Amino acid sequence: VFLANIDPDLQYRVLDQVEGPSLVAADTMNFWIQGKRRALLRTLERVDLLVLNEAEARMLADEPNLVRAAQVIRSWGPKGVVIKRGEYGAIYFADGHVFSAPAYPLEEVRDPTGAGDSFAGGLMGYLASTGNVEPDNVRRAIVFGAALASFNVEDFSFRRLQSLTYPEVAERFRQFKGLTSFEAEV
Amino acid sequence: VFLANIDPDLQYRVLDQVEGPSLVAADTMNFWIQGKRRALLRTLERVDLLVLNEAEARMLADEPNLVRAAQVIRSWGPKGVVIKRGEYGAIYFADGHVFSAPAYPLEEVRDPTGAGDSFAGGLMGYLASTGNVEPDNVRRAIVFGAALASFNVEDFSFRRLQSLTYPEVAERFRQFKGLTSFEAEV
Repeated sequence: VFLANIDPDLQYRVLDQVEGPSLVAADTMNFWIQGKRRALLRTLERVDLLVLNEAEARMLADEPNLVRAAQVIRSWGPKGVVIKRGEYGAIYFADGHVFSAPAYPLEEVRDPTGAGDSFAGGLMGYLASTGNVEPDNVRRAIVFGAALASFNVEDFSFRRLQSLTYPEVAERFRQFKGLTSFEAEV
Repeated sequence: VFLANIDPDLQYRVLDQVEGPSLVAADTMNFWIQGKRRALLRTLERVDLLVLNEAEARMLADEPNLVRAAQVIRSWGPKGVVIKRGEYGAIYFADGHVFSAPAYPLEEVRDPTGAGDSFAGGLMGYLASTGNVEPDNVRRAIVFGAALASFNVEDFSFRRLQSLTYPEVAERFRQFKGLTSFEAEV
């Protein structure tokens, strides 16, 4: 279940209605971090994977260093934290895992609105369709989300997503391999 | 040969004195981009690999989009462009290659001064010691430079580099593999 960015009290009540979720993921924002911090922390105790952007991670943890911010947040409940970095991609922290995924370099970005939401949607869709919530699969889910988000920003609103096909997303997923690969010898 | 960030006319004259270099790499900055643009473009015609930061790439190409900025710069001579992105790593453009490397996520960054220079030094040292300037080896050289830069920022000035050993750099290089790897299946 993905608790999108709403009032943390509502997120909590939604959770009460979900029976035995395989994974609880959540998003949040500055408005709730500042205005409903206590309710947010209560909800976080029940969250497995928190997805938020850099500024939000720093604000929530009250810690400018992202590695330490992720540690602080993970001490409150979430086993994993995915920090979105816009055009720079995303970084994922979990037990024994640090994974950095780039954003797909595009020649034309028409509308960044919804990039974070399509990223989270792709990530969750990948986890749901594969039925595997282990960290190694979360890595792939992050790349899948980044691929989906890269299409979303190619056109205004969700116009590009309307015509998007699964093979196109799969092909871009594969391109992330070439984008990040190097031979591990020194 | 690495033409570090000096007056592009001087870079040009240094090149005149180098006999048959295997690779000409160069760095530059806003001061020369704005103040000695013509001399800089003349030098770039003889440069194989340009290393500069995001703001410099955008300013030099007069193009906000990094992918297009790299294309513009490559049309002036450099076969490869490495764009430094500070805590976000670096991105490399060459014929048929786009490679994105993260920065190493550190719990403590004490002094970012010299990160870009130690990155370039590590990159060039790796290319020189391996004697291979092909794009696939430039990828590895970028990771090596990123590993070296990550040590440099751990302490003030070049204090950390004074005690740094090769096995430490090699070990961190290997950690970049874990930091970026995911199974390429969808």
